[in-house]
Amino acid sequence: MCDSMAMTSANNLFSDIPLEFKEELFEIILRRETFRIERIVSHGHSSPEGFWYDQDEHEWVIILKGSAIIRFEDQAENITMSSGEYIHIEKHQRHRVVWTDPEQETIWLAVHYQ
Amino acid sequence: MCDSMAMTSANNLFSDIPLEFKEELFEIILRRETFRIERIVSHGHSSPEGFWYDQDEHEWVIILKGSAIIRFEDQAENITMSSGEYIHIEKHQRHRVVWTDPEQETIWLAVHYQ
Repeated sequence: MCDSMAMTSANNLFSDIPLEFKEELFEIILRRETFRIERIVSHGHSSPEGFWYDQDEHEWVIILKGSAIIRFEDQAENITMSSGEYIHIEKHQRHRVVWTDPEQETIWLAVHYQ
Repeated sequence: MCDSMAMTSANNLFSDIPLEFKEELFEIILRRETFRIERIVSHGHSSPEGFWYDQDEHEWVIILKGSAIIRFEDQAENITMSSGEYIHIEKHQRHRVVWTDPEQETIWLAVHYQ
């Protein structure tokens, strides 16, 4: 897929979203040995009560559209993120998504790496 | 800088842009051994006549705001890119920026990797 991308017109990260979806959408945009780029689409989703992400990889993540609230277990205050805002999450830094905007899609772009 | 990002509020890729700038703005957002994430801000800029980018690294690049026209030396047709659209550029795949929107900023996010 990737090799053909440069030979065609551009793909669009803001489109190709189903009109309705129950679960958050996770899609790998580019996968390489040392990192992968992922699109996530939320729409009012949040992490289940008591659930914490505890990942084996570092993550750089930006919100391209919409807004969300993130909570880190080791921080007193939640982080509110809106369009254009990005954070870095160290591997095994436990965190959860407290809230995403129920009124519109929230589109995240994440880079996971070793 | 990166280590402190997760401990503070989020940075914003769409802000911190000077009101006026003559040259395109290039800013490293995250640098790791195998890749780096870069923000580029254009405003009517294009590659100089006859100039081709010929890079030692692969590049995945998305336009987050604005629009641009890219030309690959090995392709007959230009690629028009607008908000949300991304392409993959193989290393040493010669290309140039033919045009960027003069009416607004064009914000690119690029991932350069080995």
